[in-house]
Amino acid sequence: MDAQTLLALLEERSGQFVSGAEISRKLGVSRTAIWKHVRKLEAEGYVIEAAPRNGYRLVERPCRLSPAGLSAKLATRVFGRRLQVLDAVPSTQDVVRELAEAGAPEGTLVLAEQQTRGRGRMGRAWVSPPGKGVWMSLLLRPRVPLPLAPQLTMLAAVALCRGLGRIAPLPIGIKWPNDLLVEGRKISGILLESAAEDERLKHVVVGIGISVNLEAEDFPPEVRAKAVSLRMALGRPLDRTDVVAAVMEEFETLYELYDGQGFGPIRSLWEARSATLHRRVRLETPQGTVEGTAEALDELGGLRIRRDDGTLHTVYTGELTGPLQMAEGERS
Amino acid sequence: MDAQTLLALLEERSGQFVSGAEISRKLGVSRTAIWKHVRKLEAEGYVIEAAPRNGYRLVERPCRLSPAGLSAKLATRVFGRRLQVLDAVPSTQDVVRELAEAGAPEGTLVLAEQQTRGRGRMGRAWVSPPGKGVWMSLLLRPRVPLPLAPQLTMLAAVALCRGLGRIAPLPIGIKWPNDLLVEGRKISGILLESAAEDERLKHVVVGIGISVNLEAEDFPPEVRAKAVSLRMALGRPLDRTDVVAAVMEEFETLYELYDGQGFGPIRSLWEARSATLHRRVRLETPQGTVEGTAEALDELGGLRIRRDDGTLHTVYTGELTGPLQMAEGERS
Repeated sequence: MDAQTLLALLEERSGQFVSGAEISRKLGVSRTAIWKHVRKLEAEGYVIEAAPRNGYRLVERPCRLSPAGLSAKLATRVFGRRLQVLDAVPSTQDVVRELAEAGAPEGTLVLAEQQTRGRGRMGRAWVSPPGKGVWMSLLLRPRVPLPLAPQLTMLAAVALCRGLGRIAPLPIGIKWPNDLLVEGRKISGILLESAAEDERLKHVVVGIGISVNLEAEDFPPEVRAKAVSLRMALGRPLDRTDVVAAVMEEFETLYELYDGQGFGPIRSLWEARSATLHRRVRLETPQGTVEGTAEALDELGGLRIRRDDGTLHTVYTGELTGPLQMAEGERS
Repeated sequence: MDAQTLLALLEERSGQFVSGAEISRKLGVSRTAIWKHVRKLEAEGYVIEAAPRNGYRLVERPCRLSPAGLSAKLATRVFGRRLQVLDAVPSTQDVVRELAEAGAPEGTLVLAEQQTRGRGRMGRAWVSPPGKGVWMSLLLRPRVPLPLAPQLTMLAAVALCRGLGRIAPLPIGIKWPNDLLVEGRKISGILLESAAEDERLKHVVVGIGISVNLEAEDFPPEVRAKAVSLRMALGRPLDRTDVVAAVMEEFETLYELYDGQGFGPIRSLWEARSATLHRRVRLETPQGTVEGTAEALDELGGLRIRRDDGTLHTVYTGELTGPLQMAEGERS
């Protein structure tokens, strides 16, 4: 037994007492061992009441993310089974990249309470204030060749969209390639950093930023009109541990689906959640501006755009700047 | 003026004296400046005779690679214009990767007299003894999206094959994806390490190992039957500086062609030099063994294999283990 097994048992009883005798029996440990684990949980910020006749009960969860709390909630086989929660780091991406190069296994997950130099797409900064969001990086070692790496970008967007949808009844749409929007405002971002040797992917570090409990003033003035948090959209705060667990579970499920059945099912799921398809778009690409109607996603994650002169153009890299609104009836 | 301009002038006269007055006039510098540059070249291993009445003449080139010697020979605009020659390093790939992350420009080239942990494909070691080969890494910052990165693997193979062909009249063939063979034995290897953010290639480090002047006993016993050097194949040693210059010039030319016209011309050149197409092959892939006849190269650098049951299978990553011989009449 370890601390998280004890925590899971206490969580199960949601605030009711569990007797020491029952814990000893169920987990097969001594009273002394129980006490040691209680102390460990308290060190992580849990408040546990111990009453001589009644046993133990969980009074308060920490507002900080805790490894034991996350492990107890995660119903995954691989994703997040190795995890670290750090205090303040420049970027969780760099931490996981170093772990990857040192041989860390697939599914290694690193979270930080705060990022001081969080990165977004196109080298932009990503706002990651302490304690209010989920700033994390997940290590993948996919068995796909390099040209197919962009499919993982789409997979990550679908996983995040579905994971958040499980705990927050909001109309979340995917802006190509992988921003998540609620009513046109960004609620989450994804950044995949890949390393390859020839055509062989060595590893992919998936950076995920979710604005969970930020309030309007937590965003810098220049992004306030374009950004929103789950708390602002829902009108209530969420438990960040629930957010991480839901996203990791969806991610692992879809990753296994992809491994077994390829990109087809992922593409359908992406298309169903897309806030970009069938709309007029304007894209800034290294080769210039492309304007037209977004028609489909191709096998490599490229966006097929029908220009006004009828020609079809596929874009793999670029920045969507065109008008983007969720149409009516597209609540997810 | 710098030392390499002076060197170029001395090289031009191939061992004849050039008067101090002429050098002063042609290069627009004082006698004192000439003397300083002569000293610098001598420090790099050149032997320059200075005679009071006759001026200066080049007596001996260093057998070590020298930055001034390389710069004087290179007829490129970008590739190798920034260069370093190191003594012994674990791997030039790691040096250039660090330079890339620190913002070094495209074309940055690092050579080493010796690699103590040279890497080949699939994590194998690459034999890089001191002073006998060309062990180098070139930094590219290509304007192509990630899915097209394998095209650069093919481009590098063609560039190397054509570069070596310019100075060594040998039948060099390309084994898919990018090994160079002379009569079935490996003479050179290429390893591309790519880093991407989402679908955007951040940089590609092209590692090139060329067994120039190695003798049979320089190869470890276990690879002797499969490896050969230019010197062994030609029966005479080559100047390593000429080898680097020829490869860099071909590489830059093809890279510009690719930037302007895409993969079409590169694919044709690869196919013309291929030692794999139209032959029976056996490939070990992560998904199992594939056997059949190699029919073509696809748009992404994948190998199209016609199996005996008539089905077509495209392989992006794997290890060719099938029999490979150059057919008669295929001298390049």
